[in-house]
Amino acid sequence: MISSYQKANAKKLERFISLALQKAGISKKDADLTAEILIDADLRGIDTHGVINLHQYYVKKVISRIIKSKPEMKTYQGSKTTATIDGDNGLGFIVSHYAMTKAIAMAKESGSGWVSVFNSNHAGAGAYYVLMAVKENMIGIHFSTGGTSVAGPGGSGKLVGNNVIAFGAPANKYAPFVFDMAPTMSIANKAHLLAWDNKKMPEGYVIDGEGNPVTDPNGYFNPKSAVLPLGSSMTHGVHKGFGLLLLSDILTGVLSGDGGSMLRKKGADSHAFCALRIDAFSSISAFKNLMDEMIEKIHSAPTLKGSASIRYPGERADLTYKERIAHGIPLHPKIVEDLSEMSKALNLSIEDIWES
Amino acid sequence: MISSYQKANAKKLERFISLALQKAGISKKDADLTAEILIDADLRGIDTHGVINLHQYYVKKVISRIIKSKPEMKTYQGSKTTATIDGDNGLGFIVSHYAMTKAIAMAKESGSGWVSVFNSNHAGAGAYYVLMAVKENMIGIHFSTGGTSVAGPGGSGKLVGNNVIAFGAPANKYAPFVFDMAPTMSIANKAHLLAWDNKKMPEGYVIDGEGNPVTDPNGYFNPKSAVLPLGSSMTHGVHKGFGLLLLSDILTGVLSGDGGSMLRKKGADSHAFCALRIDAFSSISAFKNLMDEMIEKIHSAPTLKGSASIRYPGERADLTYKERIAHGIPLHPKIVEDLSEMSKALNLSIEDIWES
Repeated sequence: MISSYQKANAKKLERFISLALQKAGISKKDADLTAEILIDADLRGIDTHGVINLHQYYVKKVISRIIKSKPEMKTYQGSKTTATIDGDNGLGFIVSHYAMTKAIAMAKESGSGWVSVFNSNHAGAGAYYVLMAVKENMIGIHFSTGGTSVAGPGGSGKLVGNNVIAFGAPANKYAPFVFDMAPTMSIANKAHLLAWDNKKMPEGYVIDGEGNPVTDPNGYFNPKSAVLPLGSSMTHGVHKGFGLLLLSDILTGVLSGDGGSMLRKKGADSHAFCALRIDAFSSISAFKNLMDEMIEKIHSAPTLKGSASIRYPGERADLTYKERIAHGIPLHPKIVEDLSEMSKALNLSIEDIWES
Repeated sequence: MISSYQKANAKKLERFISLALQKAGISKKDADLTAEILIDADLRGIDTHGVINLHQYYVKKVISRIIKSKPEMKTYQGSKTTATIDGDNGLGFIVSHYAMTKAIAMAKESGSGWVSVFNSNHAGAGAYYVLMAVKENMIGIHFSTGGTSVAGPGGSGKLVGNNVIAFGAPANKYAPFVFDMAPTMSIANKAHLLAWDNKKMPEGYVIDGEGNPVTDPNGYFNPKSAVLPLGSSMTHGVHKGFGLLLLSDILTGVLSGDGGSMLRKKGADSHAFCALRIDAFSSISAFKNLMDEMIEKIHSAPTLKGSASIRYPGERADLTYKERIAHGIPLHPKIVEDLSEMSKALNLSIEDIWES
């Protein structure tokens, strides 16, 4: 199915994204950076967090001044290794890049760095930020609030955010370990993708206000519907997914003074970033070699009949990255339609993005 | 059912635990500390991680020198805020208390502290360690390897540890937020408790070597069986639970040089501890008030027909603590049987533990 989609060239699409953001009022430097982060998600196969959001989540919001085009971020340095950043309602990408850069700088100096952020916006895929740390031979950890769309255990309706937990660590022979997820059963853009393709959502993902399963993906967006935390049911550990969502809320929103996805007192989204210098614990080479051994143990583990060998988080994304850099990024026709509409409004040419 | 169990008095049982450990060769100071941590789990209602393990996991292992009675722990201080500790094969409680004390000290000095630990042993419930930080107006985070009993996604047989993630944060009017779990479908002692009571295990918890559901709790201990990561099935996010288990392995075993639950090169268990000084991010009172508001939002959230109001992690444990301090800790007859056997061998009197 996906192979028949028209394919965008990564470099061309990245340039197109930057131009669109610049037309919306973002500086060239910030637009280039945002384009780099967005395209990274598409390249890694995280189709829910890349260019799919460009028009509706970023360009439109900057043009209508819901998001500030020229934020002036402020850093409150609470200690040598901790800081809280006011994102000044800027694009989540710019604020998050700034915050992880700060966490990495503190880790260089003192072994570890923690940054909490308030008054930011949707920051795309967490993978990019943890990989910033990985490139410096550090472990990177990232949390973020997500849209308030998730029910509590036994709850009716939306209570807590579809919050993010992301984690990255370098290996030696293998692609970095990159774990980037919401501890819930689904996210808005997965529902969109299913709806566009007339597919059903499995039971156990979303419930209506009475707790009945919602399998029509359009039902995700009903005001009374709610996504379930990871675990899905009382018997299968839904309280564990709920706890992870709250953990993310505390490290992002409560620690930064915003309150998190249930309160949002100081803006749309809150984040947290942590960088840990590996050589402040053990040697970098010993760490990377152990990561390789761990990965080889996973690869060589026996599997059930019909199951392929087990992959570690970040492995498939790395393969997709290589494939898409070489052969292009397949774009869903609905995304192309949305980008075409945006192109017309901004006087850009969508024709400039395709693989030749 | 549980109310008909004979009830131990918390103070008496704590003293009994310490005496048993001293008879096994542990110093009075370390035995008292271990008893305090073990009894805390029983008081909080974590019946799987308290005195249930005293005889088989700790006393027997110390007597047979599988665990060292007088460990000499070593600290490698990699930076102002990071350290790696060699637990010298001591009791996990002693090693973990030492390591969290170190993390807290670094956080006092520099805002945050991270400690990775190798060559340790089973450390009981994570709640105690994160609460050590909470009592200092810090956020506490704890990871640990657990017994290698969990399958990877699509895997056959045991691959990865039943690893721990624990997190604590203080509130103002309300009991601290304490989230303490394994991102898996079950743990060994839950299977024991079900087996003792002739109960079935729900489907989706444990599979046999061919992937068939195991519902007889004794089947948990079959060498070919494996617990499933949180999420349980491919459709319901088992890869998310698996990723969380690996995250815990990396922060504990890989970062400390042991390799984690799949490799265990330097001992039985690895841990990690993090302490974050709240006033190094924002004010303690602002943080605690936001925690209260978050909790009130959870309590007042609409629930489904037949569901009670939603609780936050740590809330039920706090209620159980108060109940059990006042009225005693109900002990399963099988635990009493095991403790009686131990008492005879150690020349202690089990009769000393009961509520009068």
